[in-house]
Amino acid sequence: MPTETRQRQVDRSRETRRKLMAATVECLVERGWAGTTTTMVAERAGVSRGAQLHHFRTRGELVAAAVEHLGAESVLQLKERASRVGGSTAAVVELIADFYASDLFTAALELWVAARTDPELSAVVVPLQARIGRETHRLAVELLGADETRPGVREAVQITLDLVRGLALANQLTDDARRRERLVRHWAQMLEAVL
Amino acid sequence: MPTETRQRQVDRSRETRRKLMAATVECLVERGWAGTTTTMVAERAGVSRGAQLHHFRTRGELVAAAVEHLGAESVLQLKERASRVGGSTAAVVELIADFYASDLFTAALELWVAARTDPELSAVVVPLQARIGRETHRLAVELLGADETRPGVREAVQITLDLVRGLALANQLTDDARRRERLVRHWAQMLEAVL
Repeated sequence: MPTETRQRQVDRSRETRRKLMAATVECLVERGWAGTTTTMVAERAGVSRGAQLHHFRTRGELVAAAVEHLGAESVLQLKERASRVGGSTAAVVELIADFYASDLFTAALELWVAARTDPELSAVVVPLQARIGRETHRLAVELLGADETRPGVREAVQITLDLVRGLALANQLTDDARRRERLVRHWAQMLEAVL
Repeated sequence: MPTETRQRQVDRSRETRRKLMAATVECLVERGWAGTTTTMVAERAGVSRGAQLHHFRTRGELVAAAVEHLGAESVLQLKERASRVGGSTAAVVELIADFYASDLFTAALELWVAARTDPELSAVVVPLQARIGRETHRLAVELLGADETRPGVREAVQITLDLVRGLALANQLTDDARRRERLVRHWAQMLEAVL
């Protein structure tokens, strides 16, 4: 097969994956885990069932890949935005909090909750959760310029992430943005004193 | 109808409600929202479908009543335990964190997440969430002996609750107790300094 043709196939295949993953996250956000069927995702993505099955054998695989993909994309976005706002603790904490209060968190939450009572899904989601947790921690340390060898710094970074996760949860049913902003500002001051 | 007979009926009716609510929370924890059908709850509670419908017309009503009931019971338990451990900030924060990392939170989480994509359930859950939020805040203020007129105290109490909510979420798929204990101890020290 000529190189150009092969490259076109690789591109097309990558584009199909990307469409399927984007449609999956949209479905999770709009309809939740129960409403995210492989049929609905294929339709929304404009991809045939055969092509879908070629890329992802099960709903669990598809959904985990989608969340991981979105997570990786969001991390890039977050880094890019962080480089623009400058490195003040308040600005970085606000960025991280907004990152959590996004569709990515909503999609991931659907997945975490469904995995709790679905062993097959859990097998996919538990390692994914651990990986996202580690990466987010590393990114927060980097963005905050935190020196984790100093006492209390590692804990303060972890508290930041657990706090924004709790705040993101409070944002699922109602718009909690004003309260979140106020608490994030307050926490950023406390964190600043520790760092 | 003689008073004694009427009293017996009232007792029996209350006992039926209690059984249905307990079975509902068990179902939510074991099987999640999707697996919590009214038929399964009635069976588990040993209550006829007719009796169940007499008390709760819809699955949403049943489930919201169950979470509210468990919430009220848990608040009583929490107060009782708090009176035994004494009022140190560390002990109280630990109690609150354990309270959140319980079956009540798991059941409530199933409900919050399902309500996000189910308008009928959302109509029941949004006011419930607001009520539980207010009551938990009031209880935390009371247990911590916090003076919210002092600057930063109200925010610190809210941060406590959002933090333990985030920690509880991290505990859904894997046992996160050790990390939680460490962070809770650390936060309690920071909170103590504010209070």
